[in-house]
Amino acid sequence: MQGDPEVAVLRLGHRPGRDERITTHVGLTARALGADRVILAGDGANRAETVADITERFGGPFAVDTVESWRSILREWEGEIVHLTMYGLEVQNVEAEIREAHRERREPLLVVVGAEKIPFDVYEAADWNVGVTNQPHSEIASLAVFLDRLFEGRELDREFEDAEKVVVPQAVGKRVVEADDE
Amino acid sequence: MQGDPEVAVLRLGHRPGRDERITTHVGLTARALGADRVILAGDGANRAETVADITERFGGPFAVDTVESWRSILREWEGEIVHLTMYGLEVQNVEAEIREAHRERREPLLVVVGAEKIPFDVYEAADWNVGVTNQPHSEIASLAVFLDRLFEGRELDREFEDAEKVVVPQAVGKRVVEADDE
Repeated sequence: MQGDPEVAVLRLGHRPGRDERITTHVGLTARALGADRVILAGDGANRAETVADITERFGGPFAVDTVESWRSILREWEGEIVHLTMYGLEVQNVEAEIREAHRERREPLLVVVGAEKIPFDVYEAADWNVGVTNQPHSEIASLAVFLDRLFEGRELDREFEDAEKVVVPQAVGKRVVEADDE
Repeated sequence: MQGDPEVAVLRLGHRPGRDERITTHVGLTARALGADRVILAGDGANRAETVADITERFGGPFAVDTVESWRSILREWEGEIVHLTMYGLEVQNVEAEIREAHRERREPLLVVVGAEKIPFDVYEAADWNVGVTNQPHSEIASLAVFLDRLFEGRELDREFEDAEKVVVPQAVGKRVVEADDE
């Protein structure tokens, strides 16, 4: 988010056909919950346009990058790396350390989310392997809870710039205004 | 969760072919993050077995129900209803009220998550229409953040019973033990 060191989300392990909507949700969740950028690796790159289109309509800043091989991203990352995995350390036990790295030491953060069968070198490259529970569920859910805890809810007040459309919260029903109407 | 009034998640609007994995992730997220039950409506019912299979292996209690028409569920629910929607009131502004209803007034909670194009009667049936941001992202992400805030993190310490497999948190790598080995 604006004013914080970068938070980028790297999406690995996209399986064509199976993961189309999952990868889209990863990208949109990253944007909505305070990350600055999503990097879609391999076949996940085909979801870039969908995510960029939402940014176009609902505002940013939010970048969508694609990369053929994610290994160079991990190797060259200047900052800390968090890998979200059901096998990792419990988020409630490591989140304070990660926040401290990000907020106090001003380290950019790469948050890696995979699908099934993530190669062992990802575990080794990570500064923290983190489990949002040690139960099998969803990389989207893990990313969402992780970002909400990383930012301690500040992401919910993020203001998006250059939006064409803005949703106005309603008790019942839907209200969407063109940004110029505000 | 055990000791709390019931939290059930109702999944609406599943579109065959498009939403298979999304609906599975909704069910698994509900289980992992403290709900007691998921109700899969309409065509989403075909994901029941996948979710039940995870409960079989990784423990419960967690129920998976299926229903042809969700309208009767909304109509007959005895308790409060929360509908997660990007058009709703901001979660940070209503979560305390919802927690109070659930924890102090001991009201069972039905959490409704849809896909696109949710009929207007869902908005009307809900006691709260709640947005986890007013941005388009993911019903899985919204559910995850909502449950984490509803339970204030207590769900991360939930113990699952009758598991065949238990994941032991690791700084690097994977460790899964058969439940009897513990």
